[in-house]
Amino acid sequence: MAVEQLLEDYRERAEKVLEKSLPSANDLPGYLHEAMRYAALGGGKRVRAVLVYAAGQAVGTAPAELDAPAAAIELIHAYSLVHDDLPAMDDDDLRRGKPTCHKAFGEATAILVGDALQSLAFEVLAEQDSVNATIPMAMIRELASAAGSRGMCGGQAIDMEAVGQQLTLEQLETMHAYKTGALIRAGVRLGVLSQPTTVPETLERLDDYARAVGLAFQIRDDILDVVADTETLGKPQGSDAARRKPTYTALLGLEGAREKTRALHRRALDDLKPFGPSADPLRALADYIVKRAN
Amino acid sequence: MAVEQLLEDYRERAEKVLEKSLPSANDLPGYLHEAMRYAALGGGKRVRAVLVYAAGQAVGTAPAELDAPAAAIELIHAYSLVHDDLPAMDDDDLRRGKPTCHKAFGEATAILVGDALQSLAFEVLAEQDSVNATIPMAMIRELASAAGSRGMCGGQAIDMEAVGQQLTLEQLETMHAYKTGALIRAGVRLGVLSQPTTVPETLERLDDYARAVGLAFQIRDDILDVVADTETLGKPQGSDAARRKPTYTALLGLEGAREKTRALHRRALDDLKPFGPSADPLRALADYIVKRAN
Repeated sequence: MAVEQLLEDYRERAEKVLEKSLPSANDLPGYLHEAMRYAALGGGKRVRAVLVYAAGQAVGTAPAELDAPAAAIELIHAYSLVHDDLPAMDDDDLRRGKPTCHKAFGEATAILVGDALQSLAFEVLAEQDSVNATIPMAMIRELASAAGSRGMCGGQAIDMEAVGQQLTLEQLETMHAYKTGALIRAGVRLGVLSQPTTVPETLERLDDYARAVGLAFQIRDDILDVVADTETLGKPQGSDAARRKPTYTALLGLEGAREKTRALHRRALDDLKPFGPSADPLRALADYIVKRAN
Repeated sequence: MAVEQLLEDYRERAEKVLEKSLPSANDLPGYLHEAMRYAALGGGKRVRAVLVYAAGQAVGTAPAELDAPAAAIELIHAYSLVHDDLPAMDDDDLRRGKPTCHKAFGEATAILVGDALQSLAFEVLAEQDSVNATIPMAMIRELASAAGSRGMCGGQAIDMEAVGQQLTLEQLETMHAYKTGALIRAGVRLGVLSQPTTVPETLERLDDYARAVGLAFQIRDDILDVVADTETLGKPQGSDAARRKPTYTALLGLEGAREKTRALHRRALDDLKPFGPSADPLRALADYIVKRAN
């Protein structure tokens, strides 16, 4: 299908932009740069970058003007995975079927890889050649806030405190709204910010779409943790349950969790109703997120 | 002396701006925010922030326009200390005479504290209300580049690889130009960037001043590591030597290291010759950096 090809094109585009934005392993310090490339390149679904391109398309922005935010958000996501995998955090050995960064390069280097990928994300956004500097400025505000203590980092902190605890559904949703939701929303919002004349109602609809899709993405993760096998997932199946992390499947049951993703899927598509074919990639992304197998 | 009072005023100003820029410990997630405040507030010489104000004054910018870059550079510095102290890095228990962040709040939280402080630095810079958005944009580029893999993080990576190795004087200078020099230079450059009409020769002179002062700062650190006692320093005396880190005192001897700081001090003052009294704070800072006792 044409729209699925477009999503794949966006994914490949993000991969290339990311590749170009990372320092060469020939530049000093080579070992750190090699580790940064190892952590940030070579795979991943690039959902956040694709959301930037797809949301940008919905408001009429060409992909070339979205390359910087697409790369920046993937750099932030990549740094967060490296730090989340560290022994003091989730202590994971595998990521996308490969040894995690600290397993491959050592713990000290992995800490620095995450730190340097974060700096690079903001460098990439600030290097944009924009006629109107208020656009990249708004993007930097958006990404910094989504990544920080009232966003992704805050969610990880809440998650660490919640291990072994019984959370309510509301507490679980708050945690995920921070931990994964903030960056998914930022993907959509970065796309929309490329058009500063967007009317507030459009931003609100796309923001609600992003909230629904972000939550569905997380519940799908929990479902896959229960039903998929290690090979498909690239990490041991049932690893979250084994760590006694609170999950949607534990709270709602497998069928309850599936029903919730279907409801969120409908809400996301409802949010897009006023949009024409320019929002087809966002529609296809919503479909993909609730149906994905890994 | 009046100029010394001004430096102290700048330090206190930076402390206040920093305090206001950090999220309240009452905001969710409270434990993370408490740890961020613990790590970033309550002490420190604020040399980098004072450099921002002093360099800004030399090119005619009022302190109020320098609050954001002053806070941002101290947030970056604070994050780097938290991560450098981690067990996988320098494994330090004490910082400024207090337990290090991971000793007080646990390792996972300390990793997140550093990550969130870095995001906050760029958020603070991007939230500036500037008539001319190209100024904060240039500041973000400067700080991101100085903090990243070709700056501070890169220097830390080179330093980790160098433990137990015999470096040449040139290799040691390269390492420090990245590790501590990049952020000291960024302090001066952020101040200068507040005046985008500054002529290139002025920027070059102030940049050379910053390079000299940054290197002198590091050599003074090495000297203090040999001669000061633990109480004055806030960390165990001789701790770098004990870890077999390459130092200037090891390479040049104590008197050789002292002579080198004197030469750098002269070079820094020479760089400031064309400036009038507006550069007095920069002159006083150069004096302070080579003479400081902690």
